[in-house]
Amino acid sequence: MFVYSVERRWFHSKGEDEAETMKDRAKVGGCDLARSLRWEGGELYLLDQTRLPGEVVENRQESVEMVRDSIKRLAVRGAPAIGIAGAYGLVLGLRGHLGLGLGDFLAQAEKTAAYLNSSRPTAVNLSWALKRMLARAAAAAAPNSAAAAAPDSAAVYRALVAEAEAIHAEDRAICRGIGESGESLVAEGCGVLTHCNAGALAASELGTATAPLYLAFAAGRRFRVYADETRPLLQGARLTSWELQRAGLDVTLICDDMAAYIMSRGLVDLCIVGCDRVAADGDFANKIGTLGVAILARHFSLPFYVACPSSTIDLGTARGSDIVIEERGAEEVTSFGARRTAPEGIKVRNPAFDVTPHELVSGFITEKGILRPPYTESLAGIFG
Amino acid sequence: MFVYSVERRWFHSKGEDEAETMKDRAKVGGCDLARSLRWEGGELYLLDQTRLPGEVVENRQESVEMVRDSIKRLAVRGAPAIGIAGAYGLVLGLRGHLGLGLGDFLAQAEKTAAYLNSSRPTAVNLSWALKRMLARAAAAAAPNSAAAAAPDSAAVYRALVAEAEAIHAEDRAICRGIGESGESLVAEGCGVLTHCNAGALAASELGTATAPLYLAFAAGRRFRVYADETRPLLQGARLTSWELQRAGLDVTLICDDMAAYIMSRGLVDLCIVGCDRVAADGDFANKIGTLGVAILARHFSLPFYVACPSSTIDLGTARGSDIVIEERGAEEVTSFGARRTAPEGIKVRNPAFDVTPHELVSGFITEKGILRPPYTESLAGIFG
Repeated sequence: MFVYSVERRWFHSKGEDEAETMKDRAKVGGCDLARSLRWEGGELYLLDQTRLPGEVVENRQESVEMVRDSIKRLAVRGAPAIGIAGAYGLVLGLRGHLGLGLGDFLAQAEKTAAYLNSSRPTAVNLSWALKRMLARAAAAAAPNSAAAAAPDSAAVYRALVAEAEAIHAEDRAICRGIGESGESLVAEGCGVLTHCNAGALAASELGTATAPLYLAFAAGRRFRVYADETRPLLQGARLTSWELQRAGLDVTLICDDMAAYIMSRGLVDLCIVGCDRVAADGDFANKIGTLGVAILARHFSLPFYVACPSSTIDLGTARGSDIVIEERGAEEVTSFGARRTAPEGIKVRNPAFDVTPHELVSGFITEKGILRPPYTESLAGIFG
Repeated sequence: MFVYSVERRWFHSKGEDEAETMKDRAKVGGCDLARSLRWEGGELYLLDQTRLPGEVVENRQESVEMVRDSIKRLAVRGAPAIGIAGAYGLVLGLRGHLGLGLGDFLAQAEKTAAYLNSSRPTAVNLSWALKRMLARAAAAAAPNSAAAAAPDSAAVYRALVAEAEAIHAEDRAICRGIGESGESLVAEGCGVLTHCNAGALAASELGTATAPLYLAFAAGRRFRVYADETRPLLQGARLTSWELQRAGLDVTLICDDMAAYIMSRGLVDLCIVGCDRVAADGDFANKIGTLGVAILARHFSLPFYVACPSSTIDLGTARGSDIVIEERGAEEVTSFGARRTAPEGIKVRNPAFDVTPHELVSGFITEKGILRPPYTESLAGIFG
């Protein structure tokens, strides 16, 4: 029914005969909606999401510094995409060091991973991906490797390329799994509110919070989506409304402070948001404003779901209050583009994330199914 | 301790000897903070609040059309200021019709009032002020008037000028009364969150929601204010943070979707917002986003107060659901200045107000004291 077209649209009707549902394409892995990143010919291309929706610009990443900068300035954003970009970034950073001896090469890998990891402290997927890459490097460098030749830097590098590609491929499968877990929550004719962008642009394929929406849509159901604009960086206005609109979904953009009104009018049946880190107790960190949406949903007795790859679950963090909240620069709040919108010298708070307590969460939609309370058990259970 | 200085600041320290507290000045009526409007030499000047904080521009109003446009495009905004501007606008609109006979003049007054009233349907103060002006016109035109000469158009016009000036003077006194009613709520060291601008800029002197803050500050108490930026038109960023900062208060600007986080960190002890219309049951309409703040306050068990002149109480509106909500243009949500921030053709909701149910209100701070539940009794009581 819908196929992906790289040129102008993400879905293009081809008529019934050659119908190929998005779900089918997703299943065969051929559907790459909203390419936040692309790895082709050994090169990493990142869509500069800070320039959307006005400009669609993809930048070839020339260096690990450029990748770190892309992560830091949110050109690539969204927990899964950051993890993948970090893995490829590590590959790029090591490419110039193949002449090093094995020990020095591994030390360089550690150093480069730490450098990349410092770009976004709250994003657990980044540290998760980098740890996984380093583990693969260590395994590939082990002398009792099954390979005939003794391992060298080039062999470890090849293993890292393969690992980054595996992380990327797994993310596509995970998004698909989240979509399949959550699709049935999205009923015909319902209203769904989402915050920020946990969409195709935040991951490598169907997105996380959007995956149930895309699969429900591909299955023929029609529903309304309300996208919070998500100040200060307007990911909802710039990204979510853009990707859903292009995909043909019925999306309505609202300001963050309109969510309560929209709910009060009975227009919302369900909230689905993404997630940057889930603590072992089910408290989770996500884009600033998520906590407010969760409280409003509770007030109006609406289900509030959190879409998350299981890699976002951090059992090493006991509770939400242990999560460090990144505070960003004042200028994101006090100006818009080049235009200043607040008085000079005004004091500002600009937390990038907030922590929502698990009591407000109806369930975590993961690639392994929907996790329900008590979360200390269900979250730990999927790793069991 | 603080005196008003028209040039650069609103308060200027003069030392203890010549100390004159703002409260004292307010009491003598000599303090005209944040002049949203000015009536001098028979001319009406409106500060163009759409250009703040970057530019401070006052426009002399040339015609009733210009006044209506100023109200409609929010150059003058805030319930009390709109009422005053409407009253003076009626005077301006009738100035060119003094040659009419008495009957035609009164008909013209009715027509001009209806024209002005159509600019902002939700603002009850506008219709209140215009009704009061028409009643004064009718009284002045009555043949059994105490005046020696038979009433003519010029006499009615003079009565209307006096009535507009009386509405203006009463608003100053009302703001002062609201401040005195609510001042004691603002304790030393506390945190107060406000939404939109119900400040000096919204009224003719101390403002409504800000009046308790200004008087508490003038009384020497120090506290933190968090100003929601208030999308889409950013009255909090452009106006509230500007007027409080200039007045010397400790104000921190936040995005609307940060309020829940700030509350979750224990930084807020009290919310005070303004109000556009209170129904007889205590439900009230105010700037979009107010409902969300009220729900958050309830979640965090924080007192939530509504500052309102008694003229904002509309016993003719039985309940909140009877209040018509003005929906404004999409471009306020989809672009910022000249810069588009959302995709072309995106669907948008842009309600200008929301209605907060009375269950979420701790009290209405009026010039006649703080009204407590049950509101059907306490609201009606102040008119008894």
